[in-house]
Amino acid sequence: MKTVHVQTEKAYDVLIGSGLMEQAGECLSRVAAPCRAAIITDDTVDALFGEKVQLSLQNAGFSVCRMHFEQGEKNKNLQTYAQIMTFLAEREITRSDIIVALGGGVVGDTAGFAAATYLRGIRFIQMPTTLLAMVDSSVGGKTAIDLDCGKNLCGAFWQPSLVVCDTDALHTLPEKIYKDGLAESFKHGVLRDEKLFELLENTDARMNINEIVARNVQIKAEYVAQDEHDTGLRQQLNLGHTLGHALEKLSNYAITHGQAVAIGMVYAARIAQKLQLCDAAVPERIAAALRSAGLPTQAAFSAQEIARVALGDKKRRGNTLRMVLPEEIGRCRMQDVPVDALQEVIALGVEA
Amino acid sequence: MKTVHVQTEKAYDVLIGSGLMEQAGECLSRVAAPCRAAIITDDTVDALFGEKVQLSLQNAGFSVCRMHFEQGEKNKNLQTYAQIMTFLAEREITRSDIIVALGGGVVGDTAGFAAATYLRGIRFIQMPTTLLAMVDSSVGGKTAIDLDCGKNLCGAFWQPSLVVCDTDALHTLPEKIYKDGLAESFKHGVLRDEKLFELLENTDARMNINEIVARNVQIKAEYVAQDEHDTGLRQQLNLGHTLGHALEKLSNYAITHGQAVAIGMVYAARIAQKLQLCDAAVPERIAAALRSAGLPTQAAFSAQEIARVALGDKKRRGNTLRMVLPEEIGRCRMQDVPVDALQEVIALGVEA
Repeated sequence: MKTVHVQTEKAYDVLIGSGLMEQAGECLSRVAAPCRAAIITDDTVDALFGEKVQLSLQNAGFSVCRMHFEQGEKNKNLQTYAQIMTFLAEREITRSDIIVALGGGVVGDTAGFAAATYLRGIRFIQMPTTLLAMVDSSVGGKTAIDLDCGKNLCGAFWQPSLVVCDTDALHTLPEKIYKDGLAESFKHGVLRDEKLFELLENTDARMNINEIVARNVQIKAEYVAQDEHDTGLRQQLNLGHTLGHALEKLSNYAITHGQAVAIGMVYAARIAQKLQLCDAAVPERIAAALRSAGLPTQAAFSAQEIARVALGDKKRRGNTLRMVLPEEIGRCRMQDVPVDALQEVIALGVEA
Repeated sequence: MKTVHVQTEKAYDVLIGSGLMEQAGECLSRVAAPCRAAIITDDTVDALFGEKVQLSLQNAGFSVCRMHFEQGEKNKNLQTYAQIMTFLAEREITRSDIIVALGGGVVGDTAGFAAATYLRGIRFIQMPTTLLAMVDSSVGGKTAIDLDCGKNLCGAFWQPSLVVCDTDALHTLPEKIYKDGLAESFKHGVLRDEKLFELLENTDARMNINEIVARNVQIKAEYVAQDEHDTGLRQQLNLGHTLGHALEKLSNYAITHGQAVAIGMVYAARIAQKLQLCDAAVPERIAAALRSAGLPTQAAFSAQEIARVALGDKKRRGNTLRMVLPEEIGRCRMQDVPVDALQEVIALGVEA
């Protein structure tokens, strides 16, 4: 088992290894004395792992209740939130009890927001079951639900007490969802770990999954520790996201988050190259690596379309849009692009 | 104008005086450079003060939008919350903008929770317009909304950047609502300010309203500074509330919060006297003062009924219920009452 320490105001550990769900009780005992534990999950994950985690927690002396909601991003909403909060209230969960968020990003974000706000905040642990959630969303304390008019509009910064990544969960993960996580892993490599990028480029990630997850978490943890509330440096994690979000929206989410980030990263690297911030080898190497991992590197939307949607994005500040651009594999910079020049800049990325 | 400083992690001032709504813009300028300000209020308050506050903010250079929801505790719910969040999103309020919560406790709690969670938290100021909100709920950072299955279940600790108490707002306040605030003022006097208790006992509060509000805020601020997240000392503020909440519920909220606190305080004082924690003069003096202020001092529910409902209260911890009991006017203690003995203890209070 590998352990990564996250040095936020309220520090916590991320445990990474095989078979950790069977040891959920021992893991939770590291941060909580026996109390009531409410497992929040979705129907898919519940069928796979709900029973196993509940048993382990009970064997370690926790008094467990468990609820699931219907799987899917569309359920990361106020109705599900109300359902969870009502469940917690009806089970008389108190401020000294704990929530276990068992599932992918949707479960982590939604159950995390419930933890952040139930009785003005109770403890929770993350047990991510997707690669994306392990390498990205379960670490850093960002919790949120969507409204009809926009994603992640209702949320809170609320750090978990512990994150438990059982990489065995990835065996049951559909290929497409697995690749979403790979895209974010590549992103971390491009941002600051050429070694990680090489691992992903040259080997089957599944063969080195514990090391890969641990390296990703380490990078995420460094950003989070330096910028817990996302007011500066942490924005580098938006590499590939500024254009990626626009692509997701334009495709009406037919392009998944990971696919969009992959394409967005290639576009960002091409922009960087054409602005002479990096060599031509950088976008070529990123695109080749993503392709061989089965991720897309372009989409059929014009620079004009992408610019229009990107300008509606909340990351816009006044008359500029902040983009993250690679300088080499393992080093990036933030660049404010004037809104007027945005379409032109995006065109540099869209055109190979 | 009087100023009370609240020394929480993120410190802020409470301004108390006459005519402060006309100076809302200058007040807000103390804590925020010109930005967008979203006024959230209810229909009653909006009709009285909405325009005035908006104009003052605009004159000070803020770009203002304003929305109201239907007045009343029943609207402190998820629907109103969603309505506010959607309003903020549609008006493209960003993380650098600010919310102005203009109204009584329901507005402050609901708009405060919106501020705590919109884009994972933006700044807000409180402009309380009821005595209860001025002396109690607007200070301390407790924000929340209700669910069908319980009050204040969804919430956050989120301190305002500023609190502006324009005591002129109290001129338009219905007598019954005004008295709700008086009850909490008496409570602060009993807790730690005999001088404040005397002022309330011997004079018409309306004549000394600025001083009375300031003294109340000072007391609340001291508790909040010492126990921002309500894990210890701040529980003293529950004087009169443990039994008060039960009375509110038993009456199906026909007994208002302030009335319930008044009765709860008298019961608590009688319990204290019969447990020989204070002289007989204490409950007598409290009851006489409340009566002469037009507040009730007893209700027609039995100790058995009250005990049953109080045991469902979230303040219960394991096998005891924590009560706050007066030792003299200006000094109280916390006492854990075993659940088994609760009905018997409550009976000491109910019987004069």
